[in-house]
Amino acid sequence: MTTEPVRPEARSPRGFVDRRPRDLAAERRILAAVSAVYERYGFEPLDTGAFEYADALGKFLPDADRPNEGVFALQDDPDSEGNGQWMALRYDLTAPLARFAAQNWETLPKPFRRYAYGPVWRNEKPGPGRFREFWQCDADTVGSARPEADAEIIAMAAEGLVAAGLPQGSAVLKINNRKLLDGLFDAHGVEDVRQRLTALRAIDKFDRLGWPGVRDLLGPGRLDESGDFTKGAELAPAAIGAIQSFLAIEAAPDLSRLEVVEALATLTLGAKGEEALAELQKIAAALAGMGVAEAAARIDTTVVRGLEYYTGAVFEAELLLQTADEKGNPVRFGSIGGGGRYDDLVARFTGQQAPATGFSFGVSRLASALRAAGRDLGAQARGPVVVIAFDQSRMSDYFAVARELRAAGVAAEVYLGSSGMKAQMKYADRRLSPAAVIIGEDELAAGTATVKDLDLGRALSLGVVDNAAWREQRPGQATVPRAELVATIRNILDAQP
Amino acid sequence: MTTEPVRPEARSPRGFVDRRPRDLAAERRILAAVSAVYERYGFEPLDTGAFEYADALGKFLPDADRPNEGVFALQDDPDSEGNGQWMALRYDLTAPLARFAAQNWETLPKPFRRYAYGPVWRNEKPGPGRFREFWQCDADTVGSARPEADAEIIAMAAEGLVAAGLPQGSAVLKINNRKLLDGLFDAHGVEDVRQRLTALRAIDKFDRLGWPGVRDLLGPGRLDESGDFTKGAELAPAAIGAIQSFLAIEAAPDLSRLEVVEALATLTLGAKGEEALAELQKIAAALAGMGVAEAAARIDTTVVRGLEYYTGAVFEAELLLQTADEKGNPVRFGSIGGGGRYDDLVARFTGQQAPATGFSFGVSRLASALRAAGRDLGAQARGPVVVIAFDQSRMSDYFAVARELRAAGVAAEVYLGSSGMKAQMKYADRRLSPAAVIIGEDELAAGTATVKDLDLGRALSLGVVDNAAWREQRPGQATVPRAELVATIRNILDAQP
Repeated sequence: MTTEPVRPEARSPRGFVDRRPRDLAAERRILAAVSAVYERYGFEPLDTGAFEYADALGKFLPDADRPNEGVFALQDDPDSEGNGQWMALRYDLTAPLARFAAQNWETLPKPFRRYAYGPVWRNEKPGPGRFREFWQCDADTVGSARPEADAEIIAMAAEGLVAAGLPQGSAVLKINNRKLLDGLFDAHGVEDVRQRLTALRAIDKFDRLGWPGVRDLLGPGRLDESGDFTKGAELAPAAIGAIQSFLAIEAAPDLSRLEVVEALATLTLGAKGEEALAELQKIAAALAGMGVAEAAARIDTTVVRGLEYYTGAVFEAELLLQTADEKGNPVRFGSIGGGGRYDDLVARFTGQQAPATGFSFGVSRLASALRAAGRDLGAQARGPVVVIAFDQSRMSDYFAVARELRAAGVAAEVYLGSSGMKAQMKYADRRLSPAAVIIGEDELAAGTATVKDLDLGRALSLGVVDNAAWREQRPGQATVPRAELVATIRNILDAQP
Repeated sequence: MTTEPVRPEARSPRGFVDRRPRDLAAERRILAAVSAVYERYGFEPLDTGAFEYADALGKFLPDADRPNEGVFALQDDPDSEGNGQWMALRYDLTAPLARFAAQNWETLPKPFRRYAYGPVWRNEKPGPGRFREFWQCDADTVGSARPEADAEIIAMAAEGLVAAGLPQGSAVLKINNRKLLDGLFDAHGVEDVRQRLTALRAIDKFDRLGWPGVRDLLGPGRLDESGDFTKGAELAPAAIGAIQSFLAIEAAPDLSRLEVVEALATLTLGAKGEEALAELQKIAAALAGMGVAEAAARIDTTVVRGLEYYTGAVFEAELLLQTADEKGNPVRFGSIGGGGRYDDLVARFTGQQAPATGFSFGVSRLASALRAAGRDLGAQARGPVVVIAFDQSRMSDYFAVARELRAAGVAAEVYLGSSGMKAQMKYADRRLSPAAVIIGEDELAAGTATVKDLDLGRALSLGVVDNAAWREQRPGQATVPRAELVATIRNILDAQP
C-alpha cells in the first residue's frame, strides 16, 4: 500500500494574474510605441530594482490615510553591522526615481529626463479589476522648475497615447495647477490642512457628483442614495461660492487654453494663485509652440489628482469615448493616466530642491482603453502554422518544412505530442493556427503538400464570413506543389478573414 | 533656530542595481531578437506574477543543500478563512511555469510551449557580479516526452543566441543525458544518493579541474592549491575507471553527434544508459533534420548542470571565445545558459506526468557575452539632439525645431534647465548628443541654424579620429539654411565616427 503524497494546490496568490499572449501582445506594443515616442523626446530608459529600503520609500503612499501600509515589506538579513533593514517592493515608479536621482545627483546631466516601465506592487485587498501587481509606465523630468517642462510632459503624453493606438481626439489631457486651489483657500481663509484635504477630495468628485454633490461635501456633508452620510469640509459659504466660480470655468469647454487663463485672472486667487496662473500661461504658450491641438490638451479647473505630493501643475489623461458596461449602459471610461509637478520628493534625501514633473499611466488600463476605443492590439494574435506529424518516419521532412516557413518569417512548428491526426488538428485550432500542413505518403510521392486553411474554418464556424461566398475564392483545403507551400500559406496569412 | 530633519540615505538595497540606457538598450535588443525567434518556433509569451505561494515553489531551489532558503518570503495578510499564507518571490521562471501548467492543464493546448522573461529574485549574499535580482529568459515545452522536443529547444536556443548577436560559431550548445550517468552508476554499483550527488558535482568540475582533479573528487577527496581539502565521493576504483572512459569521449571533439552516440554504445551503461542513448540518437537525427550545424550543438559527456530536477537530456550553452580578465590574461567565459528535461515538476501538483524540457539564459550574462564577443549592443546608444535655449523669448521657435526633428525620427529636446550657453553645451555632451542646434539673433534674421557636431568633438577628444583628416570633410560647426537643418543632422547621425 502506498500513501498518497501531499500535493500543493496549483494557484497564484490572490490579486496576482498570469498574462497570456493576447494581453501581453497588446501591452508590449503599447510599451514599444510609447518608449519610441519618449526616447524621441530625449527621455532615457531607467530600470531600478523591485526593492527599496523602506525609509527611502517614505510616506508617499497613494493613500494618505494609511501612509505606512499597503506595501509588501520584509526585513533583510543582517548586514556586516548586524542590522537587518526593512525593505519593500516599490508601489510606484516615482519613489525609486527620487531615490535614484538623489543618489546620482552630482553626475547626472540636469535636467534629468527618464522614462521607466515595469510592475509595481500594492498590498491591498484584491478584488475584481483590482490587482496587487500591475505595470506602470512613467516619464519624468527632474531638475527643471520651468513650466515648459510641464508642457513638454503633456505634449509627450498626448503623443504617446496616439502612438499607442488611441484614435486622435479620443483622449484629452486635462491640466490644472494645485496652487490655484491653494491660493483660493488662502484668499478665502481656509487654513486647516484637514479641511483643505477634505475639500480637495470633494472637488475631485466633481466629474461624478456634479456641483450639487461637491457643494454638499464642501459644506456640512452629503447623504448619498444608499443613505450613507459623508462628513463635509465645513467651509464658510463665501469660500464655497469662490470655489463654485472657480469650477464653473470648466463648464465652458469651448474656451481655448489661453482664454481659460484669462477667465481665471478675473477671480481672487491670492498670491499662490497668481503664481499658478503665470505658470499656466507659460504652459499654454509652450503647448502652442509644440503644436499641441487645443482639443488634445485643455486647462480644466476640476482636476485635482489624489496624490498629496503634487506641488504645482497637475494633469490627467481622460478617455472621451463613451463605453458600455456589462448591461450595455453607457459609462464614462474616465482617467487613463495622470501626473504633475512635485518639487519636494528628491529634497527628502538631499535637502536640495530638485523640481520635478512627470506623467504616469497603467499599462493594462491603457490596453483596456484601447479595446474600448475599438483598437484591440492583441486580437490579431495568431498561433504558428502547425506541421502535422503524419508519418513518424518522415519527421525530418516535417522539420525542414517548419524551418522553411520560419526562414520566410512565418511562425511554424511540428506537432510534437503523441496524439493522432484528429487530435493534432484540434491542437492546431486551439493554438489559433492560421493553417495546418499535411504531408503524407501521397504528397511525398507527388512532391506536394496539403494545406488546411484553419483561419477560414474558424471564420466560418463563427459566422464571420459567409460559407457560399468564400468557398468560391478560397478553398478550405488545397494540395499544392511543395515549392508553392510558403506562398500558399502567405496568402492565408494576408487574407485575415 | 530650526532642527535639521532626518534624511533617509539615497541607496538601493544590497545586491540590487539600477540599469541605465547602455545596459537596458543591449538587454532589450536581446529580448526582442530572442522573442522573435521563439515566437517563430511557435512558443507563446507568458508572464506570471512575481509571487508564488511558498508551497507551490516547493523544494526546487537551485542549491540542494538549502532547499527552503534563498528566497524572499513573507506571510500574506489573512484570507477570508483567517489564514495568512506564506508567499515568496519567484527564484526562477520554471517553478511558476510548473504551477501555471498544472493550474490550466485541462484547457491548455498540449504540448504547451511558452517563453517568458523577467526578473527573478534570490535572497543570497550579494557580491561582485552576484545580484539578488536578475533577468532570465526561458523557453519550455510541457507535455511532450519526445526527444525531438529536446532537439527543438536546442535548435531554437542556438538560433536565439545568433539572433541576439553572437557571431555564428562563437558559442556551442553542449548536450548530455542525465540518465547516462545514472545508468553508469547503476551498472557499477554506485547506489547511495549522496555519493551520486557528490560524484555529479565532481564531474561538473571537469572543465575547470581536468581529469586528475575530478578523479580525486570521485575517490577519497582533493587537496587544492590553497591547502583546502574537499571530501570526495569515495567511489570504488572500477566505477572511477568507467567514468573516466565515459568522460574521455569528450576529449575527441571532432566526433559528430552520431559518432559520439556510437562511441558511447561501446560502454557498459546499464538499462537507463541505453534509454538515454536511444534518446540522444533521436535528438541527433532531429537536429540534422532541423539543419543545426555540428559545430553549433555537440554531444558532450562532461555536461552535468547543477540542478537536481533534470531527469533526462541536459544542455549547456557555452561561449567559445577566449576573453581577457582585468590583468589581460585569457579566461574562458564559460556557460551562458542551459537547460534540460525535467519530467517531475508539474506532477508535483497534479500527480499526472507532464514531461517537460526547456532552456534558460541570464539576460545580462548574455549581454556580457556579447560584449566579450565584440558585439556591444548598447555602445551605439546616443542621446537626443539638444536645441540650445539661447534666447528665452524664442522658446517657441526652439520647440518647433525639436518637433521637426522628432517628426523626422530624430530624438531631440529643447534644453529646459536654467543655465547659460556653456553649461548647456556641457549638458549636451554629457547626454552623448550627436549634435547641438543653436539659433540666435543672427540665425533668426538670416533664416539659418548653427549645428555643432558633438559626435565629432567627442571622437576627436578620444583620439578616435584624426583631427586634420576630418576637419577637411567634416566641419565641427556649420551654419546652414533652416530648411537644411534636418538633413545636416542626418549626415552627422549617419557618419557615426
